[in-house]
Amino acid sequence: MSRLDSFIRRLEAQRACLDLAAHLVRELDGDVLELGLGNGRTYDHLRQLFPDRKIYVCERQVAAHPNCVPPAEFLILGDMRDTLLSARKALARRVALAHLDPATGEGAASRALAAEVTPLIIPLLRPGGLLVSEPAIAWDGLSPLPLPKSVAPGRYNLYRCVSYQSSP
Amino acid sequence: MSRLDSFIRRLEAQRACLDLAAHLVRELDGDVLELGLGNGRTYDHLRQLFPDRKIYVCERQVAAHPNCVPPAEFLILGDMRDTLLSARKALARRVALAHLDPATGEGAASRALAAEVTPLIIPLLRPGGLLVSEPAIAWDGLSPLPLPKSVAPGRYNLYRCVSYQSSP
Repeated sequence: MSRLDSFIRRLEAQRACLDLAAHLVRELDGDVLELGLGNGRTYDHLRQLFPDRKIYVCERQVAAHPNCVPPAEFLILGDMRDTLLSARKALARRVALAHLDPATGEGAASRALAAEVTPLIIPLLRPGGLLVSEPAIAWDGLSPLPLPKSVAPGRYNLYRCVSYQSSP
Repeated sequence: MSRLDSFIRRLEAQRACLDLAAHLVRELDGDVLELGLGNGRTYDHLRQLFPDRKIYVCERQVAAHPNCVPPAEFLILGDMRDTLLSARKALARRVALAHLDPATGEGAASRALAAEVTPLIIPLLRPGGLLVSEPAIAWDGLSPLPLPKSVAPGRYNLYRCVSYQSSP
């Protein structure tokens, strides 16, 4: 399998998981949190899935397509390991769906970042809220959900927040 | 359709066209020419499609994944509007398949670059050689070929070099 093949599979898995997650939270009020803007393609997809929700976006430095830059009031600028802590006051238990895709291209680096930010994301999730994540996350308060049929196990991940335990 | 949707469709179209092109040139000796390396994903795909051919790659400045950097002797460094002219001595009528994907994200810019480099690519193609291109190209010596069934007209393009006319 070429890197082009695996990249296409990862994007298809991301889209399928986000589409399913949008369906699963349709009855759950709350905001959306995108952890990393990048070029803004996934943010644009979230915008279409959630036209009526606030979508907050963490990003170190905006480098997205000009049409895919969130309004300033929803942009959380800086290193998310700092900003997610500061955002807790405003967003605690208000997020229905969070999406984490470090897109580092390296599994180990993605998992390391996920391990650092998971404890900062959990307190923002509503009870029953979802976390869609490229790296797998082991955390007591997160319960893995079945993936879309088109997505092979481990290629992308979908979790429901079942408790607010502060450590695994 | 979100930008994520359209990006996935473009990558799938690119892959389907390259796979078909590889099949179509299976009886035609000659080198492969990748016009733009980028992150190296497509080069990696070409490497798998053509394990026994020389694959030359034009790139202004290498910024690819370390595993996807071509050997120095196949890397044509610099602005392809200059280097393709210099490469003519070595590569004239030796290329069985060329692939052009400016990936500028803007249709007008891609078409403008294609218009500039097409006259430089044509003299490198073997009789019957193929040009796979994201932007559409109008050129007398290039005959459009049917696309793979999965690819909508205009999303990607496949041409056979039928003559060496120097201007449209």
